[in-house]
Amino acid sequence: MRTDTGLLATLTDALGKDAVLVDPDVTGSYRRDMMPLAPHGAPLAVVLPGSAEEVQAVVRACAAAGVPIVPRGAGSGLSGAANAIEGCVVLVTTRMNEIVEVDPDNRLAVVQPGVVNLDLRGAVEKHGLFYPPDPSSYDWCTIGGNLSTNAGGLCCVKYGVTTDSVLGLEVVLADGELLRTGRRTVKGVAGYDLTKLFIGSEGTLGVITQATLALRPLPQAPGTLVAAFPSVAAAGVAVSRVVREGVVPSLMEILDSTSIAAVEAHLKTELGAGSGCAALLLCQSDSGGEQAGRELAAIEQVCRDAGADLVHSTFDPAEGAMLLAARRAVLPALEEYGTWMTDDVCVPRTRIADLIAGCERISAEVGLKVAVVGHAGDGNMHPTIIYDASSEDEFARANQAFHDILALGLSLGGTVTGEHGIGKIKREWLAREIGPVGVRTHRAIKAALDPGNLFNPGSMFDLS
Amino acid sequence: MRTDTGLLATLTDALGKDAVLVDPDVTGSYRRDMMPLAPHGAPLAVVLPGSAEEVQAVVRACAAAGVPIVPRGAGSGLSGAANAIEGCVVLVTTRMNEIVEVDPDNRLAVVQPGVVNLDLRGAVEKHGLFYPPDPSSYDWCTIGGNLSTNAGGLCCVKYGVTTDSVLGLEVVLADGELLRTGRRTVKGVAGYDLTKLFIGSEGTLGVITQATLALRPLPQAPGTLVAAFPSVAAAGVAVSRVVREGVVPSLMEILDSTSIAAVEAHLKTELGAGSGCAALLLCQSDSGGEQAGRELAAIEQVCRDAGADLVHSTFDPAEGAMLLAARRAVLPALEEYGTWMTDDVCVPRTRIADLIAGCERISAEVGLKVAVVGHAGDGNMHPTIIYDASSEDEFARANQAFHDILALGLSLGGTVTGEHGIGKIKREWLAREIGPVGVRTHRAIKAALDPGNLFNPGSMFDLS
Repeated sequence: MRTDTGLLATLTDALGKDAVLVDPDVTGSYRRDMMPLAPHGAPLAVVLPGSAEEVQAVVRACAAAGVPIVPRGAGSGLSGAANAIEGCVVLVTTRMNEIVEVDPDNRLAVVQPGVVNLDLRGAVEKHGLFYPPDPSSYDWCTIGGNLSTNAGGLCCVKYGVTTDSVLGLEVVLADGELLRTGRRTVKGVAGYDLTKLFIGSEGTLGVITQATLALRPLPQAPGTLVAAFPSVAAAGVAVSRVVREGVVPSLMEILDSTSIAAVEAHLKTELGAGSGCAALLLCQSDSGGEQAGRELAAIEQVCRDAGADLVHSTFDPAEGAMLLAARRAVLPALEEYGTWMTDDVCVPRTRIADLIAGCERISAEVGLKVAVVGHAGDGNMHPTIIYDASSEDEFARANQAFHDILALGLSLGGTVTGEHGIGKIKREWLAREIGPVGVRTHRAIKAALDPGNLFNPGSMFDLS
Repeated sequence: MRTDTGLLATLTDALGKDAVLVDPDVTGSYRRDMMPLAPHGAPLAVVLPGSAEEVQAVVRACAAAGVPIVPRGAGSGLSGAANAIEGCVVLVTTRMNEIVEVDPDNRLAVVQPGVVNLDLRGAVEKHGLFYPPDPSSYDWCTIGGNLSTNAGGLCCVKYGVTTDSVLGLEVVLADGELLRTGRRTVKGVAGYDLTKLFIGSEGTLGVITQATLALRPLPQAPGTLVAAFPSVAAAGVAVSRVVREGVVPSLMEILDSTSIAAVEAHLKTELGAGSGCAALLLCQSDSGGEQAGRELAAIEQVCRDAGADLVHSTFDPAEGAMLLAARRAVLPALEEYGTWMTDDVCVPRTRIADLIAGCERISAEVGLKVAVVGHAGDGNMHPTIIYDASSEDEFARANQAFHDILALGLSLGGTVTGEHGIGKIKREWLAREIGPVGVRTHRAIKAALDPGNLFNPGSMFDLS
């Protein structure tokens, strides 16, 4: 333990006593994220640096001591990417939470990684600006975590994912040097796109200490449409036709009958779905005025043509917010049935109905409830398995369903993760999806940028 | 020459005689792109593979023989990235020009690299779809070249650059293996974003043999606005205010007085600028209907407030096309004064006026005409230097102006290339922009993916 004692002393010297946590009762809450399936270990220490310089000091000290670093933000992740490994240093970026700059004339913001997504949204809204990425945990997740996982959300169908809103990064590399990627301009092709290489790399290549983000004009207050379908297939047809007709809603979510029933019971309300409703589509347009009316009318027509039993549009903000709250209530609602474990696959938009049908089959096979909710507009589905956490058998069956859903997603031409990431639970699936040449390429890049395997070793893929 | 003879025999065996060119009279036209400043050498051979398998054969043969490969498309580049180096094999992808698939329900296309940008646009338009990237050379440049340079164009202010429209790639690596990156789904975070790493890597990391592209709904016929300003500063203020007001035009171009005079003389027409016009802004909205009217009205108001002498909007397609043709005529118009050498810097949108003023100063210093035209909406400017190609002295002064403009762009917080790339003319400037840590990171990635320095060696940066 000589090295560890030396390391702790070095860390304390660099960061101060309050920023180096070693008491297991305290460090326990930094051990894992929100994914129950993922393994986690006990960290040697949890450090909370307050600046890029302090991050550099941590990296240099850990590199010298040969102790791995697991970077993390708030811990809202769903892949175990931020889970501690035994004996590591967990580097938490939440203290670096300054919004350094908002520049309305160039429509950009410069932020530290610990800024909470919602706080950034609020800060730029004052300038009439909009930071689109809105993962479900937007009220507590941090920008640093969003960058590391390339987080998505409900906005993606119109506004893309996190990587689409980033102009540049500041990253501490494995040798402790500070790398600046990208730029403040909206265009630029000087060199490799290192910015987008670090985004989504799940803390395996470096520690992001600052980001320059591209903002958009604040959209109009949305109009909302809800459509109830007698079959999942009919809802799937509606999604494909919306895509084909060239309508781009600002939100397009799907709930299957299990999700609908859970929400209705939880909120003690009717979603207007009625009995026999197999799937609900929830769409918004934030284009404003006549344009929003045209877009919702086009979606309404598509839904009717696809066989919707009920279609309702509203421009009443309160009613729209209520419907959106129902969508966001799916996970809390499912908690009433037991513990949830949410999966994350993305399929071509034409295959959504096949995915939901496949999940019904898997649900029957494992004998557990599987509710499907997801971002229909981009085919990113979150089949959510309900199990009794106190039952080893149910946990094993939930685990089985989780992996069966990944196989199903791949078989439909999809990917094993649309937005949650690989982390510590889908490593074998990454290898299956990208193949041996893909894995070799990942290893070569990891070895080039982090030759000592300092950052988050064993997450995403193994080095050999 | 033993190795070379063996290599040529191997290449001929693999590709057939017609696809391996060695006659200097024939290979001469594959020596260089459109940038007169860039060095170029004589290739050993020019090969035109017809499939990914043939590309693999070329890569394996060249790797075995230790002969470098310079990949290229049509050769419309403006950085010398595709220029031959002495004794290399130039790998031309123009024969691989199949549009493999257009999938309207998932709004994507799968194409080979040799497809001409305009041909793809036409093919998807039949399905009501739109491939946005539109570099000036769109009627002859290829998608492979667009991918390798991360090409931009006039659309970027609303629709982004090439990388924003790519879902996945197929790339032949230095060991001859075929790597598949990305996916067919609109979202996905399985592993590092290798797709965006290869995009813009200018042929230094592999040879792209196929791409899966994201398409958009075909926009509405555009409305067009032209505004004439008594000073460059006033035009600059208008651009900043449009950004701040949250208006997103589908095109926003600026022409300085030199460009305007050249176009007016060339087309023998008045652009309506009148005497004393220092800068012209040309904007479009493709939002359609009332929305387009609102957007152009907002821009019109901003231009008037900023001091425009004349503002004119039209929804007449012929008049709009005429105005756009005038913008596209700048380079041909400048040819009447001499040879042009176009630069490419991108600055924060608030600094456009400063850039144009700086170019006027540089023009006076070197005693050469410098016309500034560019994509005002994203700050990507193309100051274009006119010189007499038969005069060594003028060429040297043009070269001086070219580099002075890069220094100016950097000093304004910009980048040395917004869309043309680094290639063989801006290597020192890349190093200056990204600094030693950035260069080291580039070298590490290049060495990891191309340890033998097979692909386009010496382009973008040197390995040591």
